[in-house]
Amino acid sequence: MLSKNQLKLIKSLALKKYRTQHRLFTVEGIKGITEFLNSDYTLHHLYTTKAIFDTENYTLISETDLKKISSLKSPNTALAIFEIPEPKPVKLDGLIVALDNVRDPGNLGTIIRLCDWFGIPELVCNLEAVDCYNSKVVQSTMGSLTRVNVSYLDLEAFIDEHSITSFGTFMDGENVYQKQLPKSGIIVLGNEANGISGTLEKIIDERIAIPRFGTLKATESLNVATATAIILSEFKRGSTER
Amino acid sequence: MLSKNQLKLIKSLALKKYRTQHRLFTVEGIKGITEFLNSDYTLHHLYTTKAIFDTENYTLISETDLKKISSLKSPNTALAIFEIPEPKPVKLDGLIVALDNVRDPGNLGTIIRLCDWFGIPELVCNLEAVDCYNSKVVQSTMGSLTRVNVSYLDLEAFIDEHSITSFGTFMDGENVYQKQLPKSGIIVLGNEANGISGTLEKIIDERIAIPRFGTLKATESLNVATATAIILSEFKRGSTER
Repeated sequence: MLSKNQLKLIKSLALKKYRTQHRLFTVEGIKGITEFLNSDYTLHHLYTTKAIFDTENYTLISETDLKKISSLKSPNTALAIFEIPEPKPVKLDGLIVALDNVRDPGNLGTIIRLCDWFGIPELVCNLEAVDCYNSKVVQSTMGSLTRVNVSYLDLEAFIDEHSITSFGTFMDGENVYQKQLPKSGIIVLGNEANGISGTLEKIIDERIAIPRFGTLKATESLNVATATAIILSEFKRGSTER
Repeated sequence: MLSKNQLKLIKSLALKKYRTQHRLFTVEGIKGITEFLNSDYTLHHLYTTKAIFDTENYTLISETDLKKISSLKSPNTALAIFEIPEPKPVKLDGLIVALDNVRDPGNLGTIIRLCDWFGIPELVCNLEAVDCYNSKVVQSTMGSLTRVNVSYLDLEAFIDEHSITSFGTFMDGENVYQKQLPKSGIIVLGNEANGISGTLEKIIDERIAIPRFGTLKATESLNVATATAIILSEFKRGSTER
């Protein structure tokens, strides 16, 4: 059974304000919940229609109750509440991905998955970027959020403070396919509509671009998640070649 | 003013059944409509709140009427109905992208944009793949649909009939970064959840894979649109290097 207060708490976690206040977020579905249970994240409580999870900290609920608390069109077995961990310091070795004002939850989710795939454990976002504990982001990361440390910080100050080479994608940048790319650095990707903001642009060391092969009329830009895929692939492909 | 019959027709085009029956589809927003007006597509009729388009085939409507016909949360100035063109034969030179059972409109839209970016004019889909005239696909292609020829056909028969090398992405495929990739061929991408179907897999010539750089626990797969981005980038990057 689900109490009124439990229902109210879970519903409230749809908003960043209440996630920040309670330091809690939700994960749905067997696969996602299992990945979080097997990670460093701490379970707050699990609501499930079947007792199939490796925890005793759960409440059995009906399908009807699950529908009430789920943010999905087709709820999948369970919803878990996990604690938002204390921010961890950003490890400064290897590659770091930085997102400037990325707003779409699906894009952030895809980029977290890409970092996981390419073995990049640190993702830094400016303070206005979409929250990684937004339920759409959590759903689309497929558990990668348990392996990628997402930090929210003042991106300009961060890049300025550290003497790591920063790379930004710009239409007029150097052809990324022809450039020697290092094994460490900060790769900055910009907002869906406006790219990298002007003040940040000024402090970026290296301007890179993915060349366009289509006709002059071809699409003006790639989606930020697909651009990230291509750029990360270029930075990492060398490690398997040599 | 918008008549009842016009409203009914426009609303019906949300379903593939009626798009196929009327051979019509909708495009929304100034940028998208302008791209289609400047292309080979034939305008059926334009509904707009402002007389700013280069056509006389339009009806001025109110914002309220636009809201009624729009599929967007924030309708943008106009909605146009264009004719679905007769299928064009698939040109068999260069690279062709083939999608097996891709179901998500956003993924198809992103892949059409990627084909446009990488100068690949032919995209073939099996008959069960999501319809490229679905309004979500049209919106997310940002006009690239006017430059990429999307054909729906029996993918197995198509690959079997033509003596073009086919490439498929599989977990156990050859490292795409280490493989010599040709300038022509069919690149097959599979369904979001199940990959390339078994019957199609049997007739694919070359199995390729994007290597994973993360830990053993890392994400099992990439999203089909981001995988397409990396694979197309690999096939095309050579053209700027040499």
